[in-house]
Amino acid sequence: MRLSAYFLPTLKENPAEAQIVSHVLMLRAGLVRQASAGIYSWLPLGHRVLNKISDIVREEQNRSGALEMLMPTIQSAELWEESGRYDGYGKEMLRITDRHERPMLFGPTNEEQITQIVRDNVRSYKDLPLNLYHIQWKFRDEIRPRFGVMRGREFLMKDAYSFDVSVDTARIAYRKMFVAYLRTFERLGLQALPMAADTGPIGGDMSHEFIILAETGESAVYCHRDLIELPAPGDEVSYEDDLTPVIEPYISGYAATDEKHDQAAFEAAVPADKRVEARGIEVGHIFYFATKYSEAMNATVATPDGQNVTLHCGSYGIGVSRLVGAIIEASHDDDGIIWPWSVAPFQVGLINLKIADEGCNTMCEDIYARLTAQGIDVLYDDRDERAGGKFSDMDLIGCPWQAVIGPRGVEAGEVEIKNRATGEKETLPLEAAMDRLVSPPPEKK
Amino acid sequence: MRLSAYFLPTLKENPAEAQIVSHVLMLRAGLVRQASAGIYSWLPLGHRVLNKISDIVREEQNRSGALEMLMPTIQSAELWEESGRYDGYGKEMLRITDRHERPMLFGPTNEEQITQIVRDNVRSYKDLPLNLYHIQWKFRDEIRPRFGVMRGREFLMKDAYSFDVSVDTARIAYRKMFVAYLRTFERLGLQALPMAADTGPIGGDMSHEFIILAETGESAVYCHRDLIELPAPGDEVSYEDDLTPVIEPYISGYAATDEKHDQAAFEAAVPADKRVEARGIEVGHIFYFATKYSEAMNATVATPDGQNVTLHCGSYGIGVSRLVGAIIEASHDDDGIIWPWSVAPFQVGLINLKIADEGCNTMCEDIYARLTAQGIDVLYDDRDERAGGKFSDMDLIGCPWQAVIGPRGVEAGEVEIKNRATGEKETLPLEAAMDRLVSPPPEKK
Repeated sequence: MRLSAYFLPTLKENPAEAQIVSHVLMLRAGLVRQASAGIYSWLPLGHRVLNKISDIVREEQNRSGALEMLMPTIQSAELWEESGRYDGYGKEMLRITDRHERPMLFGPTNEEQITQIVRDNVRSYKDLPLNLYHIQWKFRDEIRPRFGVMRGREFLMKDAYSFDVSVDTARIAYRKMFVAYLRTFERLGLQALPMAADTGPIGGDMSHEFIILAETGESAVYCHRDLIELPAPGDEVSYEDDLTPVIEPYISGYAATDEKHDQAAFEAAVPADKRVEARGIEVGHIFYFATKYSEAMNATVATPDGQNVTLHCGSYGIGVSRLVGAIIEASHDDDGIIWPWSVAPFQVGLINLKIADEGCNTMCEDIYARLTAQGIDVLYDDRDERAGGKFSDMDLIGCPWQAVIGPRGVEAGEVEIKNRATGEKETLPLEAAMDRLVSPPPEKK
Repeated sequence: MRLSAYFLPTLKENPAEAQIVSHVLMLRAGLVRQASAGIYSWLPLGHRVLNKISDIVREEQNRSGALEMLMPTIQSAELWEESGRYDGYGKEMLRITDRHERPMLFGPTNEEQITQIVRDNVRSYKDLPLNLYHIQWKFRDEIRPRFGVMRGREFLMKDAYSFDVSVDTARIAYRKMFVAYLRTFERLGLQALPMAADTGPIGGDMSHEFIILAETGESAVYCHRDLIELPAPGDEVSYEDDLTPVIEPYISGYAATDEKHDQAAFEAAVPADKRVEARGIEVGHIFYFATKYSEAMNATVATPDGQNVTLHCGSYGIGVSRLVGAIIEASHDDDGIIWPWSVAPFQVGLINLKIADEGCNTMCEDIYARLTAQGIDVLYDDRDERAGGKFSDMDLIGCPWQAVIGPRGVEAGEVEIKNRATGEKETLPLEAAMDRLVSPPPEKK
């Protein structure tokens, strides 16, 4: 993309409305603009990130066997009366009355809607198991929306719902999602730690939050250092196999947020030199809620012996728009954002220091065309602006690599490349630079 | 995708609630289910089609230089008061009051919102031209929603908005969208005819509807046969060039819907043997509305000589969810849907006639793996069902190719392939069949 033809309104100053660094940087780097309290427009740069995150989430959901669909944003209140949640949900539910005076609402979640679909369309145990998900905008009318997209009112969520004939098969579905989440967050460039979460009246052990580490995180996190160093299950993992041993290492050690933390248990379970106390942000939650909605809504299937069995269900959420903010909280410095390669809106920022110079233009066009042809997203700063502004804009928006082309480099056939994360700069012959720019830069030591 | 692990609830009977063929077939083929009046859930099969259409729309918008972003669904009423449309919009606008008693609404369109963004973030003529689009759900509270997704309340629309410093540059933006639309509809497998549309108080000649031909269309259409036979501009078209001569053939002949039709002018302009009278469905609309919103909302930029100029704007819509219905209206037969190759949820339906037969399974798995590796979307019917049900389901959902594998074929090393559109069947050696299945089937003669 040529910056001269792009829409990237960056800001030099920190906006007064933003209290946390991700919100500041999302405004300054031109990712979003507030439409009204807790509601954001995603400008082209932010939209690219949102899409890249969504695509990774989608790929890993599909790989696990979940099926993508799309439920609408506006739901009928009747459904929620059936489940018994309509009155109890409170003011966070955006309630709407349509022109025929029918009570509707903007969905804050979709348990009711998906249970209705499965109830009406699935009759037999033979059609199960089923895990259906969508990536759709939700609305929760927070009393004090804040922290930008981290606690917005209109937000994008991936929510999956599994349907099974028994708790035993539901456990298989749960483990699949557990593994898919580990893989998803790793691909997003994040360290996500599963932490046992409340199950409320459902009981059991099938509720985990996924917390990513960030100094500015909302929760305190306590765990064994080994958990942080565990890599996610690799491509060799098969969702057809029993995933119990795959998950075991992630759930066997001590790991708790401040809500469930027990200092004595922590000290008993983890040697002093292995204790990690950090801050974290919740980005996902998986939860087996048994027959909570299926019973209220009479969602059953016929078993082989002709009986009806009430469906066993779980729900599995990932805060997709929240992740944009969470990734920035986890990965930034004083100059701006540092995108992980997989979600960077552009992997390479190409800076033309002198657009009046034919040699600079030719070399830039060449690099731009060749990288683009190799599937690299390049933001080419071809604006007639001062070098200082170009450098600071590029640092701010956080492409993993920068490539700087000036008249002296052109003469020498060289390119200066900069690793945004480490700040390390190198001047390389053109071809050597091209080889570097197509792969992620080395990480900070 | 293996049908045994998919969610595809087909219906044998025509649902009473559906009045038109696309609605009947979308329900029967398991593409959608109604959530409430005029609001639909997109099941996995329908969601695939919606995505394929969106992707083609997106690619052609991007190619023309338009930039994708994403505005939220919920808007503040204040914005609409600024433009003067809040009171006038009437009951089709879904009005909402949030928990703080602030008046909000579910966006039926986005002129106000995008004008605000451009006003607040674009200061100089140097940042123009700009064409920003999004593909987002809209809501219009139709008094009588009907015809399924063809006239729903919650619907997916691509809406683009162009911003220019003058009517002359706005005309360039308009022509780009005109060409992008011709290309988009052709790629969707549709014949879309541009028809001059009302400009109201704006005046001028920059308003066109794009109408696709379908026997069951809502409007009568009158045009010169040559218009129907004109191919869309090819890949060689450059959006940097003057597009006037590219567009000329599409706007020079007689073409009108019943709203603007003048029989005498039609007969004078078109020789009798070239007159086409048909039915059509509106699927797109492009419209230059000058300074209508920018003036009310004070959206200006500085010109080179330091003056402020009010922005000249156009809007460009494509009904993405409506297109799913419109394509079916244009392409079906008594047995079901006939998808164009480019938007088919699966291009090949692979039918295993005897899943108890190892030879059948081996051949099916082989074909499935090889086609998938070549990027073909295959729906593999591996269910333990009778052949008759498999055939009728596959006809209903309308994959362009069917490949049928039975024990006799396996023995002979042969596959029966069926062209869904023509009904033509051929029995071919495996390798010859494989070669056929990776390309669109020949069209009806």
